[in-house]
Amino acid sequence: MTATPSVEPVSAGSLTGFDHECDVLVVGFGCAGAAAAFEAAAAGADVLVLERAGGPGGSSAMSGGELYLGGGTALQKACGFDDDPDNMFAYLRAALGPHADEEKLRLYCDGSVEHFEWFRARGLTFNESLYDAPSWMPPTTDGLMWLGENAHPYNTLARPVPRGHRPATESFGGWLIMERLVAAAKAAGATGHEDTRATNLVVDDDGRVIGVVAHRYGDPVTYRARSAVVLTTGGFVDNEEMLAHHAPVLLGHGKVSAGLDDGSGIRMATALGAATRRMASVEVALTALPAMLVRGLLVNGLGQRFINEDVYPGLFSHAAVVHQPGPYWAIIDEEGFEDIPARDLWGVRPRHVTETLAELEEALGMPPGALEATVTAYNRHAERKRDPYFHKDPKWLRPLRPPFAAADPRGGFGGREEQGTGVAGFTLGGLHTTVDGAVLNQSGRPIPGLYAAGRAGAGIHGQGYVSGTSLGDGTFFGRRAGRHAATASE
Amino acid sequence: MTATPSVEPVSAGSLTGFDHECDVLVVGFGCAGAAAAFEAAAAGADVLVLERAGGPGGSSAMSGGELYLGGGTALQKACGFDDDPDNMFAYLRAALGPHADEEKLRLYCDGSVEHFEWFRARGLTFNESLYDAPSWMPPTTDGLMWLGENAHPYNTLARPVPRGHRPATESFGGWLIMERLVAAAKAAGATGHEDTRATNLVVDDDGRVIGVVAHRYGDPVTYRARSAVVLTTGGFVDNEEMLAHHAPVLLGHGKVSAGLDDGSGIRMATALGAATRRMASVEVALTALPAMLVRGLLVNGLGQRFINEDVYPGLFSHAAVVHQPGPYWAIIDEEGFEDIPARDLWGVRPRHVTETLAELEEALGMPPGALEATVTAYNRHAERKRDPYFHKDPKWLRPLRPPFAAADPRGGFGGREEQGTGVAGFTLGGLHTTVDGAVLNQSGRPIPGLYAAGRAGAGIHGQGYVSGTSLGDGTFFGRRAGRHAATASE
Repeated sequence: MTATPSVEPVSAGSLTGFDHECDVLVVGFGCAGAAAAFEAAAAGADVLVLERAGGPGGSSAMSGGELYLGGGTALQKACGFDDDPDNMFAYLRAALGPHADEEKLRLYCDGSVEHFEWFRARGLTFNESLYDAPSWMPPTTDGLMWLGENAHPYNTLARPVPRGHRPATESFGGWLIMERLVAAAKAAGATGHEDTRATNLVVDDDGRVIGVVAHRYGDPVTYRARSAVVLTTGGFVDNEEMLAHHAPVLLGHGKVSAGLDDGSGIRMATALGAATRRMASVEVALTALPAMLVRGLLVNGLGQRFINEDVYPGLFSHAAVVHQPGPYWAIIDEEGFEDIPARDLWGVRPRHVTETLAELEEALGMPPGALEATVTAYNRHAERKRDPYFHKDPKWLRPLRPPFAAADPRGGFGGREEQGTGVAGFTLGGLHTTVDGAVLNQSGRPIPGLYAAGRAGAGIHGQGYVSGTSLGDGTFFGRRAGRHAATASE
Repeated sequence: MTATPSVEPVSAGSLTGFDHECDVLVVGFGCAGAAAAFEAAAAGADVLVLERAGGPGGSSAMSGGELYLGGGTALQKACGFDDDPDNMFAYLRAALGPHADEEKLRLYCDGSVEHFEWFRARGLTFNESLYDAPSWMPPTTDGLMWLGENAHPYNTLARPVPRGHRPATESFGGWLIMERLVAAAKAAGATGHEDTRATNLVVDDDGRVIGVVAHRYGDPVTYRARSAVVLTTGGFVDNEEMLAHHAPVLLGHGKVSAGLDDGSGIRMATALGAATRRMASVEVALTALPAMLVRGLLVNGLGQRFINEDVYPGLFSHAAVVHQPGPYWAIIDEEGFEDIPARDLWGVRPRHVTETLAELEEALGMPPGALEATVTAYNRHAERKRDPYFHKDPKWLRPLRPPFAAADPRGGFGGREEQGTGVAGFTLGGLHTTVDGAVLNQSGRPIPGLYAAGRAGAGIHGQGYVSGTSLGDGTFFGRRAGRHAATASE
């Protein structure tokens, strides 16, 4: 039992009035909140957005800024790629699975071209060039990148085309996206209340959500929402107790967040009987160097490979962290290491350089012969440009020859390994919502007056994740939630 | 959105009266319900037990009947084993982990000797002999069995002693346990109402649970509980929608249940704002032959070993089903197969018998050389009675020699493979409760008048499971919930 502050709903009858009133009250000014606020305001609603931090942005603003979009966007066409919604759906159903939400995913893929244009209309620009190497985030300003579409088995399930859309910036693009979306929401008429943390939903006698109680500098502030409340409060990676209860795989690891993803919206709504979905699903990433891995091997502590190294980096991270006991090792040879373009090296130096695999096994604490068996098998097939184990792209296949080296993929970016486990992630599960963002109760019926989007809700993801799908579905379904909230009435 | 029948709470004010009244209303007459009913009645409460089936027993009655007990029980002592609660705790913390509930586990281990005596006082007898071979369920009437305590790494974390306590019977023992517990509850004064399915909790204006609405042959029946309602409705493996939302790994697999574990208690309570824990945790079992696996190898579809084959069979099943892509194969040689005692064979015959590993690889669709590399490494170390990969007990280590054979561990018991996937399981997550069974809300505070135990609640389990811990914690915490429910008041 804990002394957690109460998130239980407050009865409208217990309040003497409201300090503020609006049509649509959006709780959380990250990407989903900004998208919801924009659309609600554009539909004519009087919109207030609460943000507990000193300014908008949330975890979205800390992100790399990739947007997973496709189906034939102008950017894809300009780069010479032919895509369509069905092809995009086929990839994401597999990559976000198993058990991706096919109903939401269908809408997301069908609406992706329009959604890209919506971002452009909000002032984001995308350079018409492809970054054609495996990477977490290209060290260039290229506007398009691969996110696993060209790796086995996905390249057998859908025609491989790149769908990582990156706004033109020299660095992490999340701040730029948020700058534009917040400006757009405000220009459309939405007002932000900062340093204001929603703590409880307010319900009337019929069980309809009609507002929230918030706190600002410790004092309560009440908000009445004439149409609806939209929860866009983010996930729960910053709430250790919720992680322990629902997604313990992330306990002790780093957090991909701005530090405020404490699941408050999920808790306020479930306190009212809202249903949740997929609370154990997570994004998880090793701080590993994709350019090194594709040219070598990713093995577990017993020297066994477990995935083709050319997949989307989040996928080899997930396979390692969720399904393999640590440690994990990136194994490479000198020729492979020297083949890595300087711009893709991020300052990483290999360690444990040895002339023989036996020495490397000993240095890494592996059973004698373990790594040698793996490399022998790999080399034998690589001679013939084949990888019958995991089907890595033949362009990366080449027998490994001494000297060999290893790097810990949990400390892949120079100097970062001292910052904890070298693993960081965030949560994908949340409130169970309709495609329009209506929050469902345990009986599968909408809770009147309550909407959710972004990581406060369960979106298109099953147990998998690809970069740009969280900003992507947060904004896409945030827009839908905002539009529907604006027209919600009893 | 679904047309699920409503599980939303009913306001007491909307009812004109109650059809039945008692002090403690127990919902579900499986092992946790019987234990709760017994203790509440023994404490002097007027107890009613609702059961939706035509008679008591539930999924508990279908189980093998192992009880995970220890800490120095009379049976352990009679068989010559020296155990203590700390030693038991050290094993279970690891085997039920990561993230076992240490507070509940501490109580469970400290109270285990008394709990064993409680079963004996209810009329269960246990033969004072050990079944000393790896098995899901011994083909004998031995009263004690190993459940993974003597396998690496557990044998390095705690002094290995067997703790599987089996009541004397020729077959599955669950029915026997339930027969005795139901008789005990009734003898103590509890009354059962069968064919009666609880559908909604009844709450008063203060949010206290004061009864349930049930249905019998389609008609509503109302129950008033003066002290408390105890939910012992079981898990949710029979509810496909809940599996999809919370434990998708079990979708499509067999169900270890009596067919009625639809999560109704979890849903009724969460509709009222109750918190849940570990909804993704599952027990999962391959229909594999442990006696074959220990004498050979368990490999994945790429011929890689991934665990020592002498662990508790549920652990190699979990490692395979949750963490390895299928298929999985049991690899054995003729000498090993012929070494299996007839009573441990369960009619299984090996398939794919070949003279060479290359032929076996081809028959199983493995990359050329994959299995040979594994067997070569295994044999090299087995010559010296070593397994530096996974540390299988040296008594099982012996180089494998032709002829070789393989068996699909998803169809290990003769004739069963046609019954679906060869994988079956049940759910371990549920309502968040105190050690006394009080159901907590999202703010960490008890919901007045509401208790839960058994698989409707989250018990001692983290992400792991061992046979007998579900009957074990269901009865142990069922007893505690019954005692506390009997004294609950506003």
